[in-house]
Amino acid sequence: MNTKLIQETDQLLKKLFPICRSLTGSGARKTLHTLKKLCEFNIMDIPSGTQCYDWVVPNEWNITDGYIKDNTGKKIIDFKENNLHVINYSEPIDEIIHFSKLKKHLHTLPNMSKAIPYRTTYYKKDWGFCLTYDQFKKLDKNGTYHVFIDSSLKPGSLALGEGLIKGTSGKEFLFSTYYCHPSLANDNLSGIVLWILLYRYMKSRKTKHSYRFVILPETIGAIAYLSQNKKIMKKIKGGFVLTTVAGRQGKVGYKSTFLGNDIMDRIVFQTFKELNINFTQYPFDINGSDESQYSSPGFRIPIGTITKDKYFEYDYYHTSLDNLDFISAENLIKIFRIYVKVIENLEMNVTYNSLCPCGVPQFGKREDLNYPHIGGFQNQRVYDLKKEQRTLSNLNAMKWLMFCVDGKTSLLDISEKSNIPINRLYDTAEKLCVHKLLEVII
Amino acid sequence: MNTKLIQETDQLLKKLFPICRSLTGSGARKTLHTLKKLCEFNIMDIPSGTQCYDWVVPNEWNITDGYIKDNTGKKIIDFKENNLHVINYSEPIDEIIHFSKLKKHLHTLPNMSKAIPYRTTYYKKDWGFCLTYDQFKKLDKNGTYHVFIDSSLKPGSLALGEGLIKGTSGKEFLFSTYYCHPSLANDNLSGIVLWILLYRYMKSRKTKHSYRFVILPETIGAIAYLSQNKKIMKKIKGGFVLTTVAGRQGKVGYKSTFLGNDIMDRIVFQTFKELNINFTQYPFDINGSDESQYSSPGFRIPIGTITKDKYFEYDYYHTSLDNLDFISAENLIKIFRIYVKVIENLEMNVTYNSLCPCGVPQFGKREDLNYPHIGGFQNQRVYDLKKEQRTLSNLNAMKWLMFCVDGKTSLLDISEKSNIPINRLYDTAEKLCVHKLLEVII
Amino acid sequence: MNTKLIQETDQLLKKLFPICRSLTGSGARKTLHTLKKLCEFNIMDIPSGTQCYDWVVPNEWNITDGYIKDNTGKKIIDFKENNLHVINYSEPIDEIIHFSKLKKHLHTLPNMSKAIPYRTTYYKKDWGFCLTYDQFKKLDKNGTYHVFIDSSLKPGSLALGEGLIKGTSGKEFLFSTYYCHPSLANDNLSGIVLWILLYRYMKSRKTKHSYRFVILPETIGAIAYLSQNKKIMKKIKGGFVLTTVAGRQGKVGYKSTFLGNDIMDRIVFQTFKELNINFTQYPFDINGSDESQYSSPGFRIPIGTITKDKYFEYDYYHTSLDNLDFISAENLIKIFRIYVKVIENLEMNVTYNSLCPCGVPQFGKREDLNYPHIGGFQNQRVYDLKKEQRTLSNLNAMKWLMFCVDGKTSLLDISEKSNIPINRLYDTAEKLCVHKLLEVII
Repeated sequence: MNTKLIQETDQLLKKLFPICRSLTGSGARKTLHTLKKLCEFNIMDIPSGTQCYDWVVPNEWNITDGYIKDNTGKKIIDFKENNLHVINYSEPIDEIIHFSKLKKHLHTLPNMSKAIPYRTTYYKKDWGFCLTYDQFKKLDKNGTYHVFIDSSLKPGSLALGEGLIKGTSGKEFLFSTYYCHPSLANDNLSGIVLWILLYRYMKSRKTKHSYRFVILPETIGAIAYLSQNKKIMKKIKGGFVLTTVAGRQGKVGYKSTFLGNDIMDRIVFQTFKELNINFTQYPFDINGSDESQYSSPGFRIPIGTITKDKYFEYDYYHTSLDNLDFISAENLIKIFRIYVKVIENLEMNVTYNSLCPCGVPQFGKREDLNYPHIGGFQNQRVYDLKKEQRTLSNLNAMKWLMFCVDGKTSLLDISEKSNIPINRLYDTAEKLCVHKLLEVII
Repeated sequence: MNTKLIQETDQLLKKLFPICRSLTGSGARKTLHTLKKLCEFNIMDIPSGTQCYDWVVPNEWNITDGYIKDNTGKKIIDFKENNLHVINYSEPIDEIIHFSKLKKHLHTLPNMSKAIPYRTTYYKKDWGFCLTYDQFKKLDKNGTYHVFIDSSLKPGSLALGEGLIKGTSGKEFLFSTYYCHPSLANDNLSGIVLWILLYRYMKSRKTKHSYRFVILPETIGAIAYLSQNKKIMKKIKGGFVLTTVAGRQGKVGYKSTFLGNDIMDRIVFQTFKELNINFTQYPFDINGSDESQYSSPGFRIPIGTITKDKYFEYDYYHTSLDNLDFISAENLIKIFRIYVKVIENLEMNVTYNSLCPCGVPQFGKREDLNYPHIGGFQNQRVYDLKKEQRTLSNLNAMKWLMFCVDGKTSLLDISEKSNIPINRLYDTAEKLCVHKLLEVII
Repeated sequence: MNTKLIQETDQLLKKLFPICRSLTGSGARKTLHTLKKLCEFNIMDIPSGTQCYDWVVPNEWNITDGYIKDNTGKKIIDFKENNLHVINYSEPIDEIIHFSKLKKHLHTLPNMSKAIPYRTTYYKKDWGFCLTYDQFKKLDKNGTYHVFIDSSLKPGSLALGEGLIKGTSGKEFLFSTYYCHPSLANDNLSGIVLWILLYRYMKSRKTKHSYRFVILPETIGAIAYLSQNKKIMKKIKGGFVLTTVAGRQGKVGYKSTFLGNDIMDRIVFQTFKELNINFTQYPFDINGSDESQYSSPGFRIPIGTITKDKYFEYDYYHTSLDNLDFISAENLIKIFRIYVKVIENLEMNVTYNSLCPCGVPQFGKREDLNYPHIGGFQNQRVYDLKKEQRTLSNLNAMKWLMFCVDGKTSLLDISEKSNIPINRLYDTAEKLCVHKLLEVII
């Protein structure tokens, strides 16, 4: 199963990587339809020109070709070799121009001479090419060049993908990712693939809470989505932006919500503790992804992000070296499993009321609670240590629950105090409910 | 006086140690009556079968003899040598049985081969012997043994001891200990003896607050007491469980209340600071003593515990090696003195109102406040340093009090801020009351 | 300008140093009138005998001469050489007395044998001389001496200086200093000079908040002022006592307000951070200056103090060695500039409301906000780093503001979170107001 999932992930990454995605256009649409085949979700189209708060949905951009030819007619830069070569949202051009003019439209990374940078010009008409610094250095400063971009900028629409898994608790959580980057692997093809895997997994199980999965172009997409769903968003308790989850380089990371100690943050820290994961904690920063939109003053939804090589933190970020070699399906699935555990902990973070609040209950008289009838043991002095630890651990969960539960304290609270994993507290609490010692509140 | 108190303590420990105590029965009653001779308190009997919340008071257990004889008729295990040999609450038995059957009723400590463990079977009918691992190893695995326990389990009652020292403030504090352990010295003969000494001391002085002293069997006793005194318990502001206070091994310890920063905790920390005592701080844990009952959701009384070799923390815990050699009367009296100081600080933790809230008062015009009429000194530059420090210290107390007092801030609050001991603040505040600069609120 | 200000400061220090100031009298009045020439403020006279809360304004003290002559008629101690030689508020005397009687009226510092201590006897009739321990040792223990003090203690008045700079915000801040020390340079001639410079500077600029500058004798002056202005004081949000600001020895220091984390404290910490000043933090202490009056229970105004060699913390404190050699005009102006920056930060600590709370605004469509139209950069990968950093820094300020502003969060709050200086946030916020993205609340 594990191997099968990793193989499927690997194939999906390879299939989606070459597509030239952008805010809008056929690449974006092709990506969404590929994902949809794995698990059904809705796609909404928002027409170009639609006002979304301070923003307007831009024209749709499509591109079929783009190159620079030298005066011998040789293609020296070719969009078909790497779609990063043409600045995203470049307007069409077909001209012979001198190097001195061309230069202003070229983008390179002198400090990383073999990497093509990723550049965009979404909201101002412009055109340009991105190339390696090695390529740039070979250009003839007195030469003339044929620059050609076969793109179009016309009224069309922006596509938003949305899937809702309905629970019964009245609580809803958001999982958002962005699809607008072209052939860049960790940022953010990895996030796209994690998104569909997590959505499909969640659809396959019964959940107590509701989970809203959205996939959209960064910034304008999130703002457009918010503007169309203002009331719904007010009910969302928290969520995650799925991004940069498969890098091969650094540690697992967590970027906190703007609150820093919200339930979203605490449930992630608790999950890392339970999984014994050593991680880098990034404080909230205004620079990042769509948490800036979801957490903006009008919404204030606490949004966290679990990463494997977080954006900004690896050298290849936003360059052609953030390609399939930089990531691995294994790492992606590792983060997938963390998110699954986070969701399980969210599902099990119940608040109970006590039906036996005065003193500890007499566990011993309820046979299936396995309370040892011989007393007096000291933990360390028990000869059948293994069996005893299991018993003690169950006893501890029962005792902590019956001591803490008061209609306000959640299992997350009790877990943080007692160091007992949420799932063990949950299993024990459910057993205590059967015995009418506890009852569920929320 | 000190020596006399230590001698008296030592004698009391020796007198009470051999008695076979349990939840109920003649050993418990004999212990209570011995204590009562030192200082009068009430003994209430709760009949077997009485429902107490989730519990029922068990039958009374009495035991006169118990042994294992080998097939030569030789007593190889004898209750009369050490009352730990018979599991507490064992039912009677008189049988010749094979080792293979006997084995299931034997309890040893393989890692501590010279110690008899302490075991109980309060709520399930069973019988058994505890013996050293060295004794166990000598048994003939093919032999037969005569097992004999002359015990009885019959309707009777559970005894609760209670003494109330009434104050005038309307605030009440609880001091609880448990008498149910047989011949075990630190846990908890030491707590029993401290309890009677502290109760007698408190009865001998006038107090502002009320102090409720209870002595009972652990768990069932506390729950029975709570169930009979629910309304009264609601008025109790906090308290202490007296246990394990005379060990010879480790440091003074403090197990925090479930709140961790309650006035109970703060007054203990302040007292340790004033007495310059280096202590081990134990966080609240659900495993412990009757704080679990008093602090349970239905009561939430903050309960702390000051220890000398805390239960769980010493190797000999719940074994025959926790005997009179492991403890000392000197250590017990050391903890006695700490509790006395804690109580004195509780008594002096007054909240005042200011009658001169605008600016510092002119101390100098009130002759008996000893305000120096020559000004300009810098603390470090004073040649008669000793006298000056005393004066400065008095001045500081006056200044801090007049600055902080506002009808809400207690002397404990001021002491924590100013590092001036509560008793010095109290003496100074009382003087300032005479001068109508302060008045008592509570 | 800098040099000019330092020169002016230096001259002022030299001019004011020799004057024998006290709680009252001609020296105090001469000091106030010298300051008044630099910048107009009101002087109020409170008659001797006026009741001020627990205090009564004392008689006015004036002194013209004072000496000790030996039996050859030689002046061995002379007030005219150093006005510290006569205890402040000494009553007149003209007697020939034996050393054994004189001794009780002599004050020295055995540990600092070349320093004359500063001593006062404001509220009890007494007389005395202060002298160096070296001088004291030379006295003939069997000799007789002519002691002469030409002073007077008569009904008069106590002078309070007050200047008010009125703003429009409805918020008022207090800057207080004390003039009562005679020829002592750091404590507190430096505070007096800083007071007039800061007052003159504030009068020369337009302010949003109101600033109340008061100069008075320590303790009795502050209490008298409070008693006459009770209602006005209730509106004051916080302030500073200006004292000991020009020492040559130690680090810049800050004594916290009694709250420790008030806006006064936070604005000072933020200012030190912005100015990259390494400072010593002193917790609030009841021993100090007039913060004890302004922060007393009846007023509770949070008062901080920025120092250069804080009182109590330097050896020469309250001795003749705290003279012009110990201080420098440069240090005084350094603290002046810190206070100016603190005030600027107070002025700019605005709270805004957002007019675009849903998602980040589209900065790019507003040309003068200089939002770069090419996207995709990673900070570290930009080749024109210098220009880019400036842009990024502006962008960060815009983004943090639009993210945080919610009608409650102040620029100080945002500055602490974002590490962006208050003035940059302020400039950016004002620009965003022009674009109707923000609006001022307070």
